[in-house]
Amino acid sequence: MALIVQKFGGSSVADAESIKRVAKRIVETRKAGNEVVVAVSAMGDTTDDLVDLAHRVTLLPAPRELDMLLTAGERISMALLAMAIKSMGHEARSFTGSQAGMITDAQHGAARIVDVTPGRVRDALDEGAIAIVAGFQGFNRGTGDITTLGRGGSDTTAVALAAALQADVCEIYTDVDGIFTADPRIVPRAHQVPRITSEEMLELAASGAKVLHIRAVEYARRHGVTLHVRSSFSNKQGTIVYNPAGPGLDENGAPVEEPVIAGVATDLSEAKITVVGIRDEPGKAAELFTTVARTGANIDMIVQNVSAAATGLTDISFTLPKASAEAVIAVLSAEQESLGFASLQHDDQIAKLALVGAGMRTNAGVSARLFRALSDAGINIEMISTSEIRISVVTRADSIKAATLAVHSAFGLDGDEDAVVYAGTGR
Amino acid sequence: MALIVQKFGGSSVADAESIKRVAKRIVETRKAGNEVVVAVSAMGDTTDDLVDLAHRVTLLPAPRELDMLLTAGERISMALLAMAIKSMGHEARSFTGSQAGMITDAQHGAARIVDVTPGRVRDALDEGAIAIVAGFQGFNRGTGDITTLGRGGSDTTAVALAAALQADVCEIYTDVDGIFTADPRIVPRAHQVPRITSEEMLELAASGAKVLHIRAVEYARRHGVTLHVRSSFSNKQGTIVYNPAGPGLDENGAPVEEPVIAGVATDLSEAKITVVGIRDEPGKAAELFTTVARTGANIDMIVQNVSAAATGLTDISFTLPKASAEAVIAVLSAEQESLGFASLQHDDQIAKLALVGAGMRTNAGVSARLFRALSDAGINIEMISTSEIRISVVTRADSIKAATLAVHSAFGLDGDEDAVVYAGTGR
Repeated sequence: MALIVQKFGGSSVADAESIKRVAKRIVETRKAGNEVVVAVSAMGDTTDDLVDLAHRVTLLPAPRELDMLLTAGERISMALLAMAIKSMGHEARSFTGSQAGMITDAQHGAARIVDVTPGRVRDALDEGAIAIVAGFQGFNRGTGDITTLGRGGSDTTAVALAAALQADVCEIYTDVDGIFTADPRIVPRAHQVPRITSEEMLELAASGAKVLHIRAVEYARRHGVTLHVRSSFSNKQGTIVYNPAGPGLDENGAPVEEPVIAGVATDLSEAKITVVGIRDEPGKAAELFTTVARTGANIDMIVQNVSAAATGLTDISFTLPKASAEAVIAVLSAEQESLGFASLQHDDQIAKLALVGAGMRTNAGVSARLFRALSDAGINIEMISTSEIRISVVTRADSIKAATLAVHSAFGLDGDEDAVVYAGTGR
Repeated sequence: MALIVQKFGGSSVADAESIKRVAKRIVETRKAGNEVVVAVSAMGDTTDDLVDLAHRVTLLPAPRELDMLLTAGERISMALLAMAIKSMGHEARSFTGSQAGMITDAQHGAARIVDVTPGRVRDALDEGAIAIVAGFQGFNRGTGDITTLGRGGSDTTAVALAAALQADVCEIYTDVDGIFTADPRIVPRAHQVPRITSEEMLELAASGAKVLHIRAVEYARRHGVTLHVRSSFSNKQGTIVYNPAGPGLDENGAPVEEPVIAGVATDLSEAKITVVGIRDEPGKAAELFTTVARTGANIDMIVQNVSAAATGLTDISFTLPKASAEAVIAVLSAEQESLGFASLQHDDQIAKLALVGAGMRTNAGVSARLFRALSDAGINIEMISTSEIRISVVTRADSIKAATLAVHSAFGLDGDEDAVVYAGTGR
């Protein structure tokens, strides 16, 4: 008997009919002889609707109260899902984040899990019941207050439960069939990969792939949880995200022939800021990014030009989420004198392409092939950043589709037929 | 500094605007130097909407899960109310039934309060905050599960908090100005009473007056909580429901001149069942009502005819909620042989009128005057039942309005002008 954690997102439980459909799938897993724990998100757009309601009451909702409000969403979906399962003759019990032992810090709206004590969930399983746990929510012991893990937190709930309960697998049900070599809406010939390492998945998620929440992948990697990403709308096999025992080995230590490249991720959500004419001297970059950090913006790529010897001045460019750009420009402008730069440039017409693959480590020439493919397609590279298993480049936003198609082909990732794209894209 | 508990029903917090209006009223009470605890119901029709949603998933929702579902309603309203108050610059904190220490038995859907341990509420007050508590919900220690108190339970939440916190008064905000001598929609000249004893209020609530939930009045009476029923739509004085120190005394033991009659209640929600030709022998009625009790129906009035000496048979009539009649008829029909009666009659065209007043105890002739008034109006009485401070009669449903008007006049209750009836009637 295996213990399986299943996570269903908001689009999988958008209405009464969907809830019954999901209940049926859960019951099938139970009937196959497995213990089943389910993490569920709020129905459809419930969370957005509740946020709107809060904003109609006050422009700045108190974070503690906003968390109290939003957690009503999963309370509704989990109770309905448990009812649906019970009406099919199977025992089911719903648990809030607090009841399921999701202990977090006190950071309302973006709480971190500090402990998972799923005693009641384990008891429910021991009594033969299916446990339905509210995703996204937790509980702080110090204040006794309800917290939320932030957007996409239900993935993290599922993975944390899987780790604490030593589940055999954590199945993430979504509205796509699995992980693709590229976004099928950009690259029609993208194909689904049957297996991918958690390290590759992490780089893909960090580079804009939206199927899995990056925190969940991190948590799964750190705790050795195997993820299985699959569609709640089909019975296809999906993609296994696993933790290799070592480079070139599978999770059991057996040698595997890894493909060089796992996939290409694209990201149109970032902007670029360039600090023009800043003095090229030790400590200047630290000073600059200490100032930027005050805004809480997540800085992604950083590139510093070679200094012009004559002036001792240089330019520093960095990318960040578009939504953070305004605050960063404001704080830098206010410190222009003390930082001593000439001017700021803001560019929100950029896009990022990331090529990810664990096989890249042992394969020379990957970057050369990437740059050649882009050059052949007539696409200019504006920034480059690399990790051990990833190469990211920034291009003009309007070149990103051509760039992705070219790179996807150049690395032999094109499938034999077009990928199926489902209508729903929300998660 | 007084400690005031305020209860706001669903119609008072139906949308964002209403929530802001209620928040303003709460803040005014706080600014007047009081400690304030608020019990709040779910917004508008939220509870009904959630029940509908449950029924779209399954016809028979599991009671534990239905409670989990419904408690999402107050979670939303209380969080929004706390946000609204905080946005006005006052400290506020929302608490679920569980956090506020509303400990109940495990009877899902109709839980009884067994203990109230409002430590977190008291702490919030001590820190200068306004405490917002979810009405209607509780927590069972044995199972660790969330419960609900049943419909109208928010009144009970407010009263139980007032008792546990030794509040000076429990203000019940509703959509009418207070307690009236009769339903103003039936008797236009009904007038609001400034004060009424909890005993009278109990009889009025039991007789169909809907302003206060009967359990809340019982709880208030048993724990010596003074209620103040008032409108959330006006600033009028409302009605005080108090516990007299003794007959003819006010709550402090000072003598008062009680009016003989506090009011007239009407109730169109009951049906009458008559068991025809049942043997008039000891234990037969007990046997009959033991059978009826199996359905859980609340039996109200019972009348047994004088037995015909020749046959040794009698008829027994009783009233009960219309919705319970079908189940009672089914169970009695199934036991017809063992109970040994001739036939059943079912009549759902009845109405009940109850005349209530603590002064009735020491005033002879009240029932004579009641029967005279009905007789003068040409209204036939079908059943009669009395308590120390109440006389109830059953009439034809289509005579109830004329009956109520006649009785209201006969006891000198008519006011000088027509009562104001607000549009909203939901609670």
